[in-house]
Amino acid sequence: MWKETKEELYKRFEFTNFIEAFSFMTRVGMVAEKMNHHPKWLNVYNTVEIWLSTHDAGNIVTEKDKILAQHIDELI
Amino acid sequence: MWKETKEELYKRFEFTNFIEAFSFMTRVGMVAEKMNHHPKWLNVYNTVEIWLSTHDAGNIVTEKDKILAQHIDELI
Amino acid sequence: MWKETKEELYKRFEFTNFIEAFSFMTRVGMVAEKMNHHPKWLNVYNTVEIWLSTHDAGNIVTEKDKILAQHIDELI
Amino acid sequence: MWKETKEELYKRFEFTNFIEAFSFMTRVGMVAEKMNHHPKWLNVYNTVEIWLSTHDAGNIVTEKDKILAQHIDELI
Repeated sequence: MWKETKEELYKRFEFTNFIEAFSFMTRVGMVAEKMNHHPKWLNVYNTVEIWLSTHDAGNIVTEKDKILAQHIDELI
Repeated sequence: MWKETKEELYKRFEFTNFIEAFSFMTRVGMVAEKMNHHPKWLNVYNTVEIWLSTHDAGNIVTEKDKILAQHIDELI
Repeated sequence: MWKETKEELYKRFEFTNFIEAFSFMTRVGMVAEKMNHHPKWLNVYNTVEIWLSTHDAGNIVTEKDKILAQHIDELI
Repeated sequence: MWKETKEELYKRFEFTNFIEAFSFMTRVGMVAEKMNHHPKWLNVYNTVEIWLSTHDAGNIVTEKDKILAQHIDELI
């Protein structure tokens, strides 16, 4: 479940280990690059925290963030 | 199922699309680098073909190849 | 230098080690996914061989292959 | 230059674009997984911030962090 504020969408993902976490990041990275809409994300070992926000719109949540969030959920 | 000859272990993997295939390759790449035992592999879109063989033993199948093959199967 | 035949563009790349080769593949993979035009490629340790061809055009070399080849050269 | 406190080593890296930043992360990820010593890192588009600390030693900087920091600098 993504937590939504006016400024961002946030979700925390947990995996078995670093390899699984980084493999997820590779999938997300490819989708983000295709959309030309990139996350702010923090990885520590088996966890990945993602914040989505649209810089060009003044750092608020836009349709682009919601689409990327949905794509990310489909990549787990 | 890996096909085994004296010279190599071979298996073909098929995925939904390129992103899933490349994500699998990232996982395999990390495991291979950790073992310092690397595959010969061919990727075309959603397929990955892997050949395992031990160069230092004269290009025959060794225990190292069997261990890597087992690890790869666990990464699918 | 890419070798061009009617059927494909081919080039062999060599790197310091597997990590550098796979990092190159990650860059190429992202560009290929963005173009929705994917290579046939073979990796063995520090070498990457790439064949480019356009499946939808009957497996001949098209403008798409030339553009991807140019992008790949810029990623080295 | 890594900033060192008792608790962590910190450095910020900047690249041309997301593809270059993520390719760097792939290289670092492989080295980290090999060392079984993983970074805390934050990526936003073309920037990567890395914090190194040894959890098992009570979240202080140890020799392991210094070795990983040196490896990371060699991967740029």
